[in-house]
Amino acid sequence: MAPVKNGRVVFNEIPTGFPDPKRTVIYDEPQVIDPDTVPLNGEYIIKTLVLSIDPYMRGRMRDPDIESYAPPLILGKPLDNYGVGRVLRSENPSVKPGDHIYGLLPFQHYTILKDLEGLRILENKEKLPWSAYVGVAGMPGQTAYCAWKEYAHAKPGETIFITAGGGPVGSTVIQIAKRDGLKVIGSAGSAEKIEFMKKIGADVTFNYKTTKPAEVLAKEGPIDIYWDNVGGESLEAALEYANPSARFLMCGAITQYNTEPYFVKNLIHIFAKELKLYGFLVFTLLSKYADEFYREWPKRVASGEIKYKEDPKFGLQYTGQAIYEVQKGLNKGKSVIIVSQE
Amino acid sequence: MAPVKNGRVVFNEIPTGFPDPKRTVIYDEPQVIDPDTVPLNGEYIIKTLVLSIDPYMRGRMRDPDIESYAPPLILGKPLDNYGVGRVLRSENPSVKPGDHIYGLLPFQHYTILKDLEGLRILENKEKLPWSAYVGVAGMPGQTAYCAWKEYAHAKPGETIFITAGGGPVGSTVIQIAKRDGLKVIGSAGSAEKIEFMKKIGADVTFNYKTTKPAEVLAKEGPIDIYWDNVGGESLEAALEYANPSARFLMCGAITQYNTEPYFVKNLIHIFAKELKLYGFLVFTLLSKYADEFYREWPKRVASGEIKYKEDPKFGLQYTGQAIYEVQKGLNKGKSVIIVSQE
Repeated sequence: MAPVKNGRVVFNEIPTGFPDPKRTVIYDEPQVIDPDTVPLNGEYIIKTLVLSIDPYMRGRMRDPDIESYAPPLILGKPLDNYGVGRVLRSENPSVKPGDHIYGLLPFQHYTILKDLEGLRILENKEKLPWSAYVGVAGMPGQTAYCAWKEYAHAKPGETIFITAGGGPVGSTVIQIAKRDGLKVIGSAGSAEKIEFMKKIGADVTFNYKTTKPAEVLAKEGPIDIYWDNVGGESLEAALEYANPSARFLMCGAITQYNTEPYFVKNLIHIFAKELKLYGFLVFTLLSKYADEFYREWPKRVASGEIKYKEDPKFGLQYTGQAIYEVQKGLNKGKSVIIVSQE
Repeated sequence: MAPVKNGRVVFNEIPTGFPDPKRTVIYDEPQVIDPDTVPLNGEYIIKTLVLSIDPYMRGRMRDPDIESYAPPLILGKPLDNYGVGRVLRSENPSVKPGDHIYGLLPFQHYTILKDLEGLRILENKEKLPWSAYVGVAGMPGQTAYCAWKEYAHAKPGETIFITAGGGPVGSTVIQIAKRDGLKVIGSAGSAEKIEFMKKIGADVTFNYKTTKPAEVLAKEGPIDIYWDNVGGESLEAALEYANPSARFLMCGAITQYNTEPYFVKNLIHIFAKELKLYGFLVFTLLSKYADEFYREWPKRVASGEIKYKEDPKFGLQYTGQAIYEVQKGLNKGKSVIIVSQE
């Protein structure tokens, strides 16, 4: 193979408000690499196949002096996020050519990696598309799977309200909740997402842009479980229409990332209704559940029992646009960048 | 005994904002009773010794159509709350003259009761003053004791921030936390309460009326446990200066009961720091912990290990003033009405 340009996406500018599709991150090709001959010095080289675009990435686009749960992106350096790469060559005995690696990978075509720390070799006996391993069978699916096991304490016949129910986390939660015998109320921001929520079994669906969550919950509640991906008005409505001892799974707050936050006015319900609010991060829960997840979950996805929907973009140069769309809720399914089709 | 007036305190007016010491409840004496001869019809008669005035009572002074955790007070009827009464005569075989009864009792001098449902006969081998059984050895002490066991998950060396630390719940939590090896930050609204917090071992104390909680926590935090009796700005500061995986024991929100609530602006920390917020009511927890509480706790109070402070008023006619002072935070210790000294 002749030397090729090793295109990449770098963090260019800390956004205020929504990320700018053209300025926050930029695609460039400063480096040339020959994957067949580049010296490995005991390491291994992968070709990146797919990278994930997730809501939480907005929190990494900050002044690096600010502490938060995920490390900041560094200006001028490539982004990184969950992805899948194929090993081209290896001088590391624990990795062999043809292996597929999942974990945090830089946004570039070719990467030389030292070891497997924090990464996982995917067996993929089920022959899922590799993109599934950054969505329903990756971090978002794990978020739904692990937190449900840890915090939902669901009983058949209970009612759950799931926000961002058209996204990869929310849509997985809908399917788990239906399987557990719950009545599911799901909200999303587009007709397409609502269509998908219906298809996967949500009993009640609404578009939060045209209908107030409180109106729906007044009619379809009260609720026993609330899955929060959004915060703000939906959280307030959930507090208002929660049954005593309801569980709140606090997974994210996308309405609060890019615009002035909405201030919830009824926190008094937390003690008065004996609510339990569980903030969690998948990174923490995964150490407990990773093995059973990989043993069980890809099979269930492959069998068609668990459905998912993707919104792929083909090429690293669309990363900035994809990031913007996810923050705006304009994506039509799990946002993935197909970097290379093998 | 000749017939006596059976003075009582009735709920007179639903307050807007703070209760009015003269109008919200009123003392009257419409009934005459002869405790020695009044027919019992298989029931028993008690003389009320002490009644408790608690912050949560504000929530009962509402339109009875509004649902909440504690039943509404009824206009024109006597208040009720935790108290201790001495049995004068009994035709019920499970209760005998001289027994002391603890539980929800009406605000009147003499009451005929049917059975022991919801009530408890106090043995008081420790010879505590009966007033202690509505404070440190009653509902407020139980609140601290039970919720700590259930939700604190405290480890020596951790830091806790306790609001309303001069009150009967908060001051009990301070002492339990110190015994468990924690660094204790306590807030209260008067010099006297701060003095008491220091006396019982709080490491850091401040007056929230003159010092912002966020300033203190910036210097003395971060915190691992937050005990919320107040809500509002203190809760916001606790969220801001919480360590990852901190536990929030959501016990009350007195700043939100009588005035326009302060809207907390940083709920995003709940998921980002994996915080756990446990709303609870002592009524629920008590079924699990009551027996061990009564076995263990009065002894520890009697030995002087657990300290408490009371602010007694002598006579039912001071009920309205006591209720007002508790809502305003003007009480100088656990507010109790000494109805009769035997």
